[in-house]
Amino acid sequence: MKVKELMDTKILKIYPDYTARKTIELMHKKKRFSSAVLDKEDKLIGWVMSIDLAILDNKDVPITEVMHPVDKIITLNENDPAREAVRKIVEYKVVSIPVLNDEGVLVGMVRNCDITKTLAKLYDIPLYKLFETFERELKGITWDELMEAAAVVTKQTTGEEIDAKKYEERIRNTTFGQAIWSCGGLEKFFAGLIKIGEIAIARRIARRR
Amino acid sequence: MKVKELMDTKILKIYPDYTARKTIELMHKKKRFSSAVLDKEDKLIGWVMSIDLAILDNKDVPITEVMHPVDKIITLNENDPAREAVRKIVEYKVVSIPVLNDEGVLVGMVRNCDITKTLAKLYDIPLYKLFETFERELKGITWDELMEAAAVVTKQTTGEEIDAKKYEERIRNTTFGQAIWSCGGLEKFFAGLIKIGEIAIARRIARRR
Repeated sequence: MKVKELMDTKILKIYPDYTARKTIELMHKKKRFSSAVLDKEDKLIGWVMSIDLAILDNKDVPITEVMHPVDKIITLNENDPAREAVRKIVEYKVVSIPVLNDEGVLVGMVRNCDITKTLAKLYDIPLYKLFETFERELKGITWDELMEAAAVVTKQTTGEEIDAKKYEERIRNTTFGQAIWSCGGLEKFFAGLIKIGEIAIARRIARRR
Repeated sequence: MKVKELMDTKILKIYPDYTARKTIELMHKKKRFSSAVLDKEDKLIGWVMSIDLAILDNKDVPITEVMHPVDKIITLNENDPAREAVRKIVEYKVVSIPVLNDEGVLVGMVRNCDITKTLAKLYDIPLYKLFETFERELKGITWDELMEAAAVVTKQTTGEEIDAKKYEERIRNTTFGQAIWSCGGLEKFFAGLIKIGEIAIARRIARRR
């Protein structure tokens, strides 16, 4: 995924001839914590933050006197990988990052809440979807055999008394995120799945004999 | 994971007898976009945002005139599950959320950048860690057999000419996040892993005969 696929293209544009007052009014109306300052060609020249505006005693100064200059601003290129946006948000603890094209023109903004939304999707995948994949890929193993094997593995690893039916109910209401958390991490979750597959196959072979 | 495990306990405390000016100065110094207003017992009574402070003409008003009242504020309880913090940040598009204990006392703040950091950890797990789990759990299958099987599955699904050695090099530099992205999602990634396990086992059995 590239930055341009997760950026917001609705940009509040501030120009160098605006006063701080005009900028504040626009940012207040649009509920923005920060904004980009652009030249006539929409190239990024500065960055203003609401708290820097709040501290001003004279709001009639040009915005160019308040803005952070372009060489101090964290930016992204629209073709950067999405993980570069994640890395910069975590490293610099910023709320949003302006996105430029190769000409330095502002084309969008990456917002932390959009990043959170994108990252959270993986965690929210229902666990039974993975078991459906399991059933589809492990040729010859039925859903019931899989649930039985899963109950056996759960019993072995946690000591909990659980049967296939109860296990199935549980995964209907569990997400991938909850599952890896309750297993103690992705690798342990993954180890559990491998055990389930092995036991389902072993039981099926034993039955055939 | 609970909210209290990912909240920041360094809180900027604003009290009702502060003026907007004093609040602005404190928030500017601490680089905060928003802050909690607390009563004498540190119970949350309001919320101030830098842009609401920026728009003020008279900064000598008490902060209670500018703050959002407590019934309009999004909050979390310290014992809420972490995913509740994620859900609220995505739904309300906020930057930070005050965290209360059962008595309504402010005990921390959940910041979006900390959420991002936590969520991103899963994506950053090195892919070879999962293959190491695979090797450890799939009894009797060696690392080389696993890499061979992985190269076979990659060839089958993508048509790419790849051998075991090249596959191993690749997973040394790939994260879980990149892998699920290049497979087209978690379920497809997972389906690929199942195929790899099956082929590794089948090849091992074939060799034994």
